[in-house]
Amino acid sequence: MHMYDILSKKRTGLALSREEITFFVEGFTKGEIPDYQAAALLMAICIRGMDEEETTALTLAMAHSGEMADLSGIPGIKADKHSTGGVGDKTTLIVAPLAAACGVVVAKMSGRGLGYTGGTIDKLESIPGFSTNQTPERFAQIASETGVCVVGQSGNLVPADKKLYALRDVTATVESIPLIASSIMSKKLAAGCDCIVLDVKTGSGAFMKTPEEAQKLAETMVKIGQMAGRKTAALITSMDCPLGTAVGNALEVEEACRVLHGEGPEDLRVLSIELAAAMVWLAGKALNLEEARKLAAEKLRDGSALEKFKQMVAAEGGDPHVVDCPELLPKSPYRQVLKSSCAGWVQSIDTQAVGRASVVLGAGRETRESPLDYGAGIRFFHRTGEKVEPGEALAELFSQRKEALAESLAILKTAVKIGAEKVGKTPLIYAMIPENNA
Amino acid sequence: MHMYDILSKKRTGLALSREEITFFVEGFTKGEIPDYQAAALLMAICIRGMDEEETTALTLAMAHSGEMADLSGIPGIKADKHSTGGVGDKTTLIVAPLAAACGVVVAKMSGRGLGYTGGTIDKLESIPGFSTNQTPERFAQIASETGVCVVGQSGNLVPADKKLYALRDVTATVESIPLIASSIMSKKLAAGCDCIVLDVKTGSGAFMKTPEEAQKLAETMVKIGQMAGRKTAALITSMDCPLGTAVGNALEVEEACRVLHGEGPEDLRVLSIELAAAMVWLAGKALNLEEARKLAAEKLRDGSALEKFKQMVAAEGGDPHVVDCPELLPKSPYRQVLKSSCAGWVQSIDTQAVGRASVVLGAGRETRESPLDYGAGIRFFHRTGEKVEPGEALAELFSQRKEALAESLAILKTAVKIGAEKVGKTPLIYAMIPENNA
Repeated sequence: MHMYDILSKKRTGLALSREEITFFVEGFTKGEIPDYQAAALLMAICIRGMDEEETTALTLAMAHSGEMADLSGIPGIKADKHSTGGVGDKTTLIVAPLAAACGVVVAKMSGRGLGYTGGTIDKLESIPGFSTNQTPERFAQIASETGVCVVGQSGNLVPADKKLYALRDVTATVESIPLIASSIMSKKLAAGCDCIVLDVKTGSGAFMKTPEEAQKLAETMVKIGQMAGRKTAALITSMDCPLGTAVGNALEVEEACRVLHGEGPEDLRVLSIELAAAMVWLAGKALNLEEARKLAAEKLRDGSALEKFKQMVAAEGGDPHVVDCPELLPKSPYRQVLKSSCAGWVQSIDTQAVGRASVVLGAGRETRESPLDYGAGIRFFHRTGEKVEPGEALAELFSQRKEALAESLAILKTAVKIGAEKVGKTPLIYAMIPENNA
Repeated sequence: MHMYDILSKKRTGLALSREEITFFVEGFTKGEIPDYQAAALLMAICIRGMDEEETTALTLAMAHSGEMADLSGIPGIKADKHSTGGVGDKTTLIVAPLAAACGVVVAKMSGRGLGYTGGTIDKLESIPGFSTNQTPERFAQIASETGVCVVGQSGNLVPADKKLYALRDVTATVESIPLIASSIMSKKLAAGCDCIVLDVKTGSGAFMKTPEEAQKLAETMVKIGQMAGRKTAALITSMDCPLGTAVGNALEVEEACRVLHGEGPEDLRVLSIELAAAMVWLAGKALNLEEARKLAAEKLRDGSALEKFKQMVAAEGGDPHVVDCPELLPKSPYRQVLKSSCAGWVQSIDTQAVGRASVVLGAGRETRESPLDYGAGIRFFHRTGEKVEPGEALAELFSQRKEALAESLAILKTAVKIGAEKVGKTPLIYAMIPENNA
C-alpha cells in the first residue's frame, strides 16, 4: 500500500477503504508517513469529504492508535458525556453526579480549557484540595464506590489525534465534519464507556455557527458511535450566550452547586437534566426518555445529586464543604461592574468575546502553559432578551490583576449589545439525535 | 499575510490574490513556509483549481524565484520550443537548426531524460565530443555567430519549481493543469526568449491522455505566455505511437540527421516543419503561418538546416562528421529482433511501454544518477495502421547488456498490438493555439 495512491484516490473524490485509512493512521502515528503527505490528505478530506464508512474507519483507527481504557473492572453501565466546547459550560459538574444518582456509573476523563473555552478539569481544580490526577486503580475504586469520578486524561490515549490535530491547526484543515467527528469520537471510544451523550453547541460561541451544521456533526458522531457498538445520542444546544450566569472556574463551581441545591439559572438546570436524562435512558435505567427526565428531575430535587457530588469531591481529595459554603472557593480581589449605557433589551451576547474577556482576567489560558487565576471570571446579571435600564449593572468582573479589568471590560462592552427592540430568547435545545426515542 | 488564511481561502474555493501567491512562492522557496503547508495548498489547488489570473501570478512568481536568463546580448528575435515530453521525440534536433536557417535565433536550454521520456541534452551528448555544458559567454557567442545553440540548464533558474515539483511528486499533486502549466511556463519565461512554441503531447505515452485535456493545458500555457508579454503558440500533437522510428539517444540523432538530409520518417519531418514554422511565424520572419511553413520546408530541402546543425555541433565541441557518417555514432553491440507472431495490422503501440523497454536497454534513466548507454535503443520497422506478415520484423533492440534484451523484448511484445482489423492512423497534429492565425 502506498500513500501516493491513497492521496490520488481522495484527490479525485473516491472513498478510501478501511485498510487504506488504517495504513495512514498507523503510519502517521509511528512517524513513517511524513507531515507533508498527511497535510495533503487532510486538505483532500476537507474538500472532498468522507462517507459514513470512511469516517467510522478513521475514528476506529485513531481510537486504536494508543491505549484503550479498560473500565471492565468497574461494575455497572458506564456513561460518558462530551460537550463540543462552550463558554460558561459547567454542566459536567452537575450532570455527572446527577446521572450517578440515577444509577448510571460516570467514570470519565475530562480536558483542560484552552483559548476562550473552559475545561471541567480546571473547574474541579479550583476546589481546594481537589486532585484530578488519580491512579487508574484509585479512579476505578472511586467510580465503583460512589458511582462517579471525573479525572484528567492519563495514559497514551489516541496519540493519532494529538498529532493530527496539531497538523490541522497549522494547515487550515480544522473545519471538516469527518475530521472533527473522528477527533471527538476516537477519544470517547478510547475512554471506554458503554454509552455516550454528546452536547453539540451551535451559535456565536461555538465552532458550528448554525444549527444545521451542528445537526450534521451530531448525526455523524451518533452514527460513528453506533457503528462502533456504543449507545450514542446527541443534543444540539445553543451557545448564543454563556450558559448560566457565571464564566470562570470557581464562579462556575459555585453556580453548579447552586443548581445542585435546587437553585441557579433555569437554562443550566434544564440542560443538565436533559443531558443526564439522555445518559439514564441510554444506560437503560429508565423505560424511556420521558421517564428518564422525570427520574433526573427528582434526583436533583431530593438532594441525591448534591450528595453524589460531595462524595466525589471528598474522594478526590477536595473539601466537600465548598458545596454548602461557596465562600470557601477562591475569589479574586479586584472587581469592576459593567453598566448599561442606555435603556433597552439585551439583543445578543457574543459568547466568543465573553470567553476572550475571561481569558484576559486570568480565568482561561492563552497557551497550554499559561497559569490560571481560579477566582477570576465574569458574572452576568442579565441574559439575552432581558430588559435593562441605563446605569443598571450588566456584569461583574473579577481578577487578581487589577490592570486586567479595564482591558477585559473593553472587550465585554463590545460583546453585550443593547437595543431598543424587544427580542425573543433563542431556544436552548434545538434537537436530539436520534429523534423519536421516547 | 498568513499562510493559514491563504490555505483557508483556497480550501473553500476562493481565488488567491497576486500578493498571496507571491507570498507563498517566495516564502516556500526561502524555506520559511514548511513543506506541510505547501503540500496542503498544492492539494487544495489540485482540487479547487486556479483561474487565469492566479495561474499567471503563480507562473511569474516562480519565474522570478531565481535568476532570469538575459539574452539581450544576442542579436535578433529569440524563439524557444518546448515539448511536454514523449518517446522518440527528437524534434528539437531538427527544429532548432531549421528555425535558425529561417532567420530565427534559437538560444535554448534543454533538459535531460528521466523515466520513460528522453531528453535533448542526452541525445546531443551521444555525439562524440559534444559538450552541452557551455559558459553563458560561449553560449551567447555561439548563438550570435551561428544562430543556434542548445545547452543544458545552468545557473539557479526557477528554484521554486524544483522545490514544488519534488513535493508534488510525493503528494499526488502532479496532475493539475495550473500546476503543470506554471511549472513549464515559469522555466520558459526564465529562459528569456521572445517567442515560445509549445508541443503539447496527447495519447498513451503522454501526460495528457486525451486531446481535450491537452487543449486545456495548451490554452492555459498560451494565455500565461501572452499575459507575460511573450509571443506564444502551441501545437497539440499525438503521442499514441513513438515519433519517427527510433527510440534511444544515438539512434535518434541518426534519425534526425536523416530528416535534415531530406529523408527519414514522414511524421517526424511534418511535425518538425510545423514547429519550426510556428517559431518563424511568431518571430515575424514570415508574413503568415502558411508562408512560414513554405520557408521552413524550403530550408529543410536546400540543406540550410543541415548546415546549421553541423555548425552548432562543431561549435559545441562535437564531431560534425556524424551528420553525414552515422557510423561514427555509438551503437550498442547486442541486438535482437522482435518478430510478428501473426498476420494483421498494427493496432496500437503503447508508447509508455516502449519508453520503459528502452530504459531497460540502457537508453533512459531509472533515477537521476543512472548511467546512460548512448548506443542503446529500439528501431521500429512498422507503425500503427501498417500491415504485417507472420515472422516479419517489427522492431530491433540494441544494448550493451546482453541480459537486458530478453527483459526489454518481453515489455515490447506487450506494447505492440497486432489484430485482424484494418485500422486507420491517428492524426499527427490535432490543433494549433491560437487558431486562425494564418
